[in-house]
Amino acid sequence: MAIYMDHSATTALSEHALQEMMPYFHEEYGNPSAIYGYGQTGKNTLEKCRQRIAGCIGALPTEIFFTSGGTESDNWAIKGVCRRRKDRGKHIISTAMEHNAVLRTLQQMEEDGFEVTYLIPDHNGHITPEQLEEAIRPDTVLVSIMMANNVVGTVLDIKELVKTARRHHIPFHTDAVQAVGHIPVNAHDLGVDFLSLSAHKFNGPKGVGALYCRLSSPLQPLLAGGGQEKGMRSGTENIPGIVGMTTALEDAVTSMKSNTEYLKGLQERMISGVLAIPGVRLTGDPENRLPGFCSFVVEGIPHSVYVVNEMNERGVCVSSGSACSAASREASHVLVALGYGKSEAGSSIRITLGTDNTQEDVDYALRALRDSIHKVRSEKPAGLI
Amino acid sequence: MAIYMDHSATTALSEHALQEMMPYFHEEYGNPSAIYGYGQTGKNTLEKCRQRIAGCIGALPTEIFFTSGGTESDNWAIKGVCRRRKDRGKHIISTAMEHNAVLRTLQQMEEDGFEVTYLIPDHNGHITPEQLEEAIRPDTVLVSIMMANNVVGTVLDIKELVKTARRHHIPFHTDAVQAVGHIPVNAHDLGVDFLSLSAHKFNGPKGVGALYCRLSSPLQPLLAGGGQEKGMRSGTENIPGIVGMTTALEDAVTSMKSNTEYLKGLQERMISGVLAIPGVRLTGDPENRLPGFCSFVVEGIPHSVYVVNEMNERGVCVSSGSACSAASREASHVLVALGYGKSEAGSSIRITLGTDNTQEDVDYALRALRDSIHKVRSEKPAGLI
Repeated sequence: MAIYMDHSATTALSEHALQEMMPYFHEEYGNPSAIYGYGQTGKNTLEKCRQRIAGCIGALPTEIFFTSGGTESDNWAIKGVCRRRKDRGKHIISTAMEHNAVLRTLQQMEEDGFEVTYLIPDHNGHITPEQLEEAIRPDTVLVSIMMANNVVGTVLDIKELVKTARRHHIPFHTDAVQAVGHIPVNAHDLGVDFLSLSAHKFNGPKGVGALYCRLSSPLQPLLAGGGQEKGMRSGTENIPGIVGMTTALEDAVTSMKSNTEYLKGLQERMISGVLAIPGVRLTGDPENRLPGFCSFVVEGIPHSVYVVNEMNERGVCVSSGSACSAASREASHVLVALGYGKSEAGSSIRITLGTDNTQEDVDYALRALRDSIHKVRSEKPAGLI
Repeated sequence: MAIYMDHSATTALSEHALQEMMPYFHEEYGNPSAIYGYGQTGKNTLEKCRQRIAGCIGALPTEIFFTSGGTESDNWAIKGVCRRRKDRGKHIISTAMEHNAVLRTLQQMEEDGFEVTYLIPDHNGHITPEQLEEAIRPDTVLVSIMMANNVVGTVLDIKELVKTARRHHIPFHTDAVQAVGHIPVNAHDLGVDFLSLSAHKFNGPKGVGALYCRLSSPLQPLLAGGGQEKGMRSGTENIPGIVGMTTALEDAVTSMKSNTEYLKGLQERMISGVLAIPGVRLTGDPENRLPGFCSFVVEGIPHSVYVVNEMNERGVCVSSGSACSAASREASHVLVALGYGKSEAGSSIRITLGTDNTQEDVDYALRALRDSIHKVRSEKPAGLI
């Protein structure tokens, strides 16, 4: 049995969430748009989930729209706002360290004639309100800045950035996929207009997520059709998935305090152990980081995938930059944005702990990491980057 | 226990599909983009599913892209082709009887400056190659015509229509959401470029579908991001959902011959029984229709929702026009397109049978329908449309 330490990539579906999903696979399968009993039961379930999700992130139920995941939510928010507001201007502000679900979407908008300013974070992954202020133009139609970074774990001060955008009446989207379920997220308190979340990042099922959309914020549907979700997101609702996401998020929020305490303990142990290995440096903000999130660059290795493979051999699942780009040999664009040189950026290891990890797991992983790094360094493979 | 006769709206997840999904909820939850063991298992599962789905619809595995459902597939095909080909022209050809997932997407394209020709079907729901030929212009970039209609059940002769489009080198998309799993569908034989399918229409799970995309057909991603699905459809893959869809589709294809025979028997019994009620007429093609699909207009009732409600009271789930628009009191746009008057179009009842229905169910439903229609006709509610 492997030790799984890649919780930022994906998490196991919780038994509780699965239990709650089961009836909706079996009996309660009616189409919520139908007017007979079955359908109405589905509709009621859906609205209860909407209320519960809203309660978890400080939103109104009418501000919650269900999607197929974080990627759809990010694509929708960006494309939906820009297409709706294109007559007002074609300038977007974001950062150079966003997840590809945001970056690649912005590239599509550039192909459509939009201009994007990519703010450069500091070495820890922060963006200042002054940077944002300076980038704002009369034709800026959207700001999209992530809440917590998926490669280095830094938690940004979104609330301050939102204040700046609001002074200029510019809608603000935050990709909160790494944050929701792990740190307190209150949409109204943050003041954001749009917030993306993904169920499988907090022990919910894959293939389901949500977009928070503040009342009266401008948004065009990305998926047009049967008119579900008040016409904003069509497609027959994935009720079991939505029920699973709701259960998992409530559980995550309920036990967030104790989980955080537990994970911070493991995290400190892991980070101090890793930093004791010569030539290894922590990436991201040492203080304001996601609980359980450990990220490093390693000197003297050709690429982090060698270490990840060695760790796999030793039964520990960790990742390089991020899951989505794990298989690629490219340097992490996030670390490059944070000012790391190309070879450093290619040497990044991410170890993200979950509540299923124990102190013994951490100690085992530390030994495995020391051995792995040592082996990769001593092999000096020929002909490799 | 209600008798469910709205299988075109959605179907129950099969026990077999659910069984196959379970291990992927429990143990095999790795992110397929990760490079360690867990992730690679997911990746292998994904590719096996792709092969099996391809085998079911006469396609190559590389031509199958997983999505969140039929609505996403339709939106993607239309937007993806039009945005990719917008420099070649801004004219689209479709029909007036498409599902809203196509119609509303076309409306969005119209807002983006595209022009759409909506072909008018004949009274049975057919479009002729001559009609298509006549509508083609030098700036036509896409044809989108459904394979089987979701309100009247007519199966169109897509193969002939594709021939016409191909002569002019115009990509052809077909919304085959009602067809796949119910009638033989062979993408290569049809010659289509794009074909949408949805798992929950053939006893697979909700929230998952696929888009068939012929090799080298032009398409821009709708969901940009981490680069999954060869960069064509980003987002962490919903492996349990994809496994469930694959299992359900294989089962549907394997037992299609016997299912069709069984459903045709029930269908004939239902249709002849319904037509024995005075003032009721069959809609759609009497011959080329989906197995188990029964659709009617009913004279002398203010709106079909009254009959649907009465049926619900009697424990039978049926629908008016279609599930997505069931709750609305509008006349079905499909029946209007087929030349029915507005009040006729508002009186449409759809009874779609599944293999879980029995002859006794049909007989019970027929009695319930006779009673329901009689009651609604005799009540003549005041002040209603």
